[in-house]
Amino acid sequence: MQWTISADEYRRRQERVREALGRRDLVGLCLFGPTQVFYLSGFAFIQTERPMGLVFPREGQSVLFVPQLEAEHSQLHALVGQIEVYPEYPGRVHPMKRFAEICRDLGLDSRRIGVDGDGYGGGYGYRGPTLSELLPTAKVVPSRDLIEDMIAVKSPVEVALIRESAKWGTLAHALLQQYTRPGLTETEVSGRASFDATQAMIRALGPSYRPLSWLRAGAHAGYRGQIGKDSALPHSLTTNAVFRTGNVLVTGAGAGVGGYGSELERTMIIGAPDDRQRRYFDLMLGAQQAAFDAICPGAKCSDVDRAVLAYFEQHDLMPYWRHHTGHALGMGNHEAPFFDVGDDTPIVPGMVFSVEPGVYIPDYAGFRHSDTVLVTEDGMEMITNYPRVLEDLTIPA
Amino acid sequence: MQWTISADEYRRRQERVREALGRRDLVGLCLFGPTQVFYLSGFAFIQTERPMGLVFPREGQSVLFVPQLEAEHSQLHALVGQIEVYPEYPGRVHPMKRFAEICRDLGLDSRRIGVDGDGYGGGYGYRGPTLSELLPTAKVVPSRDLIEDMIAVKSPVEVALIRESAKWGTLAHALLQQYTRPGLTETEVSGRASFDATQAMIRALGPSYRPLSWLRAGAHAGYRGQIGKDSALPHSLTTNAVFRTGNVLVTGAGAGVGGYGSELERTMIIGAPDDRQRRYFDLMLGAQQAAFDAICPGAKCSDVDRAVLAYFEQHDLMPYWRHHTGHALGMGNHEAPFFDVGDDTPIVPGMVFSVEPGVYIPDYAGFRHSDTVLVTEDGMEMITNYPRVLEDLTIPA
Repeated sequence: MQWTISADEYRRRQERVREALGRRDLVGLCLFGPTQVFYLSGFAFIQTERPMGLVFPREGQSVLFVPQLEAEHSQLHALVGQIEVYPEYPGRVHPMKRFAEICRDLGLDSRRIGVDGDGYGGGYGYRGPTLSELLPTAKVVPSRDLIEDMIAVKSPVEVALIRESAKWGTLAHALLQQYTRPGLTETEVSGRASFDATQAMIRALGPSYRPLSWLRAGAHAGYRGQIGKDSALPHSLTTNAVFRTGNVLVTGAGAGVGGYGSELERTMIIGAPDDRQRRYFDLMLGAQQAAFDAICPGAKCSDVDRAVLAYFEQHDLMPYWRHHTGHALGMGNHEAPFFDVGDDTPIVPGMVFSVEPGVYIPDYAGFRHSDTVLVTEDGMEMITNYPRVLEDLTIPA
Repeated sequence: MQWTISADEYRRRQERVREALGRRDLVGLCLFGPTQVFYLSGFAFIQTERPMGLVFPREGQSVLFVPQLEAEHSQLHALVGQIEVYPEYPGRVHPMKRFAEICRDLGLDSRRIGVDGDGYGGGYGYRGPTLSELLPTAKVVPSRDLIEDMIAVKSPVEVALIRESAKWGTLAHALLQQYTRPGLTETEVSGRASFDATQAMIRALGPSYRPLSWLRAGAHAGYRGQIGKDSALPHSLTTNAVFRTGNVLVTGAGAGVGGYGSELERTMIIGAPDDRQRRYFDLMLGAQQAAFDAICPGAKCSDVDRAVLAYFEQHDLMPYWRHHTGHALGMGNHEAPFFDVGDDTPIVPGMVFSVEPGVYIPDYAGFRHSDTVLVTEDGMEMITNYPRVLEDLTIPA
């Protein structure tokens, strides 16, 4: 088993993009987002101030545009017609001027071009013109959804990589649970669990393992600061907390495999749970079950969130509601579509979502499980398999 | 010592932004980038599909715009006039419509507004309108440079945080060097060094330590795959390599402290270096010295890169040139300005840069040291202090 997407699958993706360009009456697509470029070309890279882009014409050869820094690296991995190298950013000539020339050479400059963003999105100190400014006679059409809609429905191989990720996220989480005890710090426990799970994963998967992600190189489990009262802050940043008996904890675990990830989160409690903790824990479980029950092909993403909101209202939980039910994931930690009242995207087989309604009581505690699920022909299947009842998630004090 | 920026310093930043808005004839500034929002408000957060933004009018109270998920978290940390909470993205009403209303309520809709981007930059599956579309009567003025130019010149407290980061990056690197030996994998050595350095740092800095960064929580040292022949690929992604005698290695180390980081990179060799390795190592050292010699207030950033390019030409190294000499850093891993022939920004005291010219021989090896330096009144000062000669960077075989 190679833990990556095959060249054949990349070619099928490219063929589907050509068809989509035809349907949308676009002569080509310009991609600047690292995920979108990776999805279509097989080239994973670290984003910096130096613009990178993929010009993908409906007819003719695609061109990957990279700085000198990535010349050899892209030649090894990118499945594209041609690689065009520029020296550096900002350089003697702004690289986006050269990018615009490539578009002109391909005859894209007086026609409708789809883009995932109007120019390089940047960050890292990048500044530069929009593609509209560079190609004033072209009609630049926002088309981020073209690739995103493809990314949203996973192929069997993509699902296999997500399953593999979930397996090692599960191990990292099991070690996290095993190592957590009163008096230790979150960073020590998280670091140890992540290290041990990563070593196990790398040995088990062998030399062909590649994370293909700068941010998910290995397996990981941790707390992101959601410890004790701070568990009520869904995205608390690490605060060097020390575990104490009575703490409610919210975890997060996953692993990077061939460019894909998964999401596993659990609520755990240190020491014997009291009645109030049990009550909110059970309510959280019920909310997640309401979501599971609502997921099936033919329903809309918004239906799932509405089912959860109905549950929240029925149990007087709305003061403790903080976010929607879940999001698609796979290449990205968060992807479209969303289990959100405002997202009417139809649910179809092959979609992979997190299911994670949370109950957050300010200044007391937060309660959230997150599972990764796959939409099947007749419902859904759990990709993450980890104990979910309180008895199995209680840490000895 | 609190390992964070003080409320007073945030107030001074806000006062300087007001003055800059006046000079540029802007009635306000809208920021969407997480670093820019953090720099001006003190609120560090994890970016997701949910737009966040800071509306900062020249006169009157600033408004931080956050999803319900971040309501309590932002109330704890953000130094702003007011926090405006919306339910969720995409939600029943697209959150950017509410954001536009806030701008209108502040009287910004028919005037010149500075922005760091025309709408929420997103990613994570976000889709939405530009601010220009939402406020058709406003004149939206690209102003990313306004905050970036402030970020580029560090205050004494910012420099102190970067120095602290460098100290723990140095420890992580020393452990990385100590643990590296033939037969081990890069992930094992990197994981062990990063874990041990993080534990030491957290214990030494005590409970007030906060990384204030999701991506740099703790200290880190590793190889990013630059091992053996792959050391010739400046941004190779981790490839699960096993160390072998004769390998040329390129490292990277740093730590997150109060939202700030540093950069330390070294070329190391396993076993006795041969003549060819010695030769390129020495040439790389010479290129870095050429850069150090060119850094002083009054010079331009481009002068430093030109000095390095002259050195490369003089030593017939141009076939092995892959990237510019360095970049500013601190809050971001890469920030503007750049030591690049195309960047004529004047060098001024308080700027902090990486200095890292590299020599990359395809299919053989790469050679790069990176040091973090501070521009002083009369030259520069090394912030990273780590052995740099080959005798000290040879790993026993």
